[in-house]
Amino acid sequence: MRILLTNDDGIGASGIQALWQSLSEIGEVTVVAPVSERSATSQAITVHHPIRVDEYCINHPRVCGWRVDGTPTDCVKIAVEALLDEPPDIIVSGVNHGPNLGTDVLYSGTVSAAIEGALYGFPAIAVSLNSWQSRNFSVAARFTVRLVQTVLEKQSLPPRTLLNVNVPDLPETDIRGVKVAKLGVVQYANIFQRRFDPRGRMYYWMGGEPIDSDNGEDSDVAAVKAGYISVTPVHFDLTHYSIMKEIENWRL
Amino acid sequence: MRILLTNDDGIGASGIQALWQSLSEIGEVTVVAPVSERSATSQAITVHHPIRVDEYCINHPRVCGWRVDGTPTDCVKIAVEALLDEPPDIIVSGVNHGPNLGTDVLYSGTVSAAIEGALYGFPAIAVSLNSWQSRNFSVAARFTVRLVQTVLEKQSLPPRTLLNVNVPDLPETDIRGVKVAKLGVVQYANIFQRRFDPRGRMYYWMGGEPIDSDNGEDSDVAAVKAGYISVTPVHFDLTHYSIMKEIENWRL
Repeated sequence: MRILLTNDDGIGASGIQALWQSLSEIGEVTVVAPVSERSATSQAITVHHPIRVDEYCINHPRVCGWRVDGTPTDCVKIAVEALLDEPPDIIVSGVNHGPNLGTDVLYSGTVSAAIEGALYGFPAIAVSLNSWQSRNFSVAARFTVRLVQTVLEKQSLPPRTLLNVNVPDLPETDIRGVKVAKLGVVQYANIFQRRFDPRGRMYYWMGGEPIDSDNGEDSDVAAVKAGYISVTPVHFDLTHYSIMKEIENWRL
Repeated sequence: MRILLTNDDGIGASGIQALWQSLSEIGEVTVVAPVSERSATSQAITVHHPIRVDEYCINHPRVCGWRVDGTPTDCVKIAVEALLDEPPDIIVSGVNHGPNLGTDVLYSGTVSAAIEGALYGFPAIAVSLNSWQSRNFSVAARFTVRLVQTVLEKQSLPPRTLLNVNVPDLPETDIRGVKVAKLGVVQYANIFQRRFDPRGRMYYWMGGEPIDSDNGEDSDVAAVKAGYISVTPVHFDLTHYSIMKEIENWRL
């Protein structure tokens, strides 16, 4: 089994290293990941700058991959188009440091890498840990191994579909189970802080505190909050078919 | 009518300047756009760097806005959250230099700015000209004026829906009409070129030549190719509902 592994926190992040080790037990893993953090880059691609690619190895176990001075989507494209000798059986992105839930997936580099994989026609999984601080990636890594095996065994994921997984930051025994959940809504308050630099020039920081949005029990947000691992099938056919007739009636 | 105008080619681009002039005839336009080109940035947001914001004015007609050292999505967020005194009635993004058709909308900064507007609950339109070279934005600008008026008059665009518009690079008399079309598939060949810098170090350029994909007549790709303006309603509910039951049966 050939697994292409990427992320958006950079090739040296603990989350991808944990997955690298776990996935190596079930297949041949090739890591192609950003050289440094590229979170919140969505599905951006690098078209105005050249993209540097270097080989990257770790020694225990001795495994090699590539680090790319680009976005997660760049990594998947360059892996499939230029670096890999053979196409992967599956693409895995993560484990992300921090959740990628609900509408936040639109901004996520982690999820976008999996979307890019699915665009190429490969099964793809994005995995995130619901904590910015924790380094406890073992539960997420073990679940991902199981999920990769299941996806390849079942062969029933439709084309152009990926799975977005969020894992609570809990010991394995406290995880209440797995919920197949829809994407919820994530909203923030006080998103911008205005500041002045030492020369008196204005700038803003983007931040924000999460607001408790009206998310039903069937959402990924609620599932993870309740201690479940959420698994959401994600598509990217953005056409809003049901409104097309109405717009035709506008007679533009 | 208050119109928020942005783009991904930068505030000085001809496309946004054409829209600025045309839209000023029907409403109060506030431009909040990137200081320089930010195309192919998808829905990336700037969270690891401060965001600079400067006032920006042109003199004939005398109108002012803000230029933002950030992505198109940053522009919409900072406009709505920090810069505008009152919420806009509609958000317009463009006119983009080059098409944003089919699956390419996933990478588009122009379309992502409109998605961000729709996320906030505003009607939103993304407009692109099907040419990288042409500076003939007048047809697109005039159509956008008509579309903005229609959207606000009809009040029938569902929440969280935007319109993605692509305009052929043709004189107005040669445009065959308007087609409400679904997003097609856009694919490229020979995406990466490998090169070596003067010190012998390898790098890649991302480029690629468009391949003729199997797009039906009902697609935006086919519509624009045939000389029609394409209008595609776009949503961003990425949950793949119909496969959820199947995945539940996997008993993860």
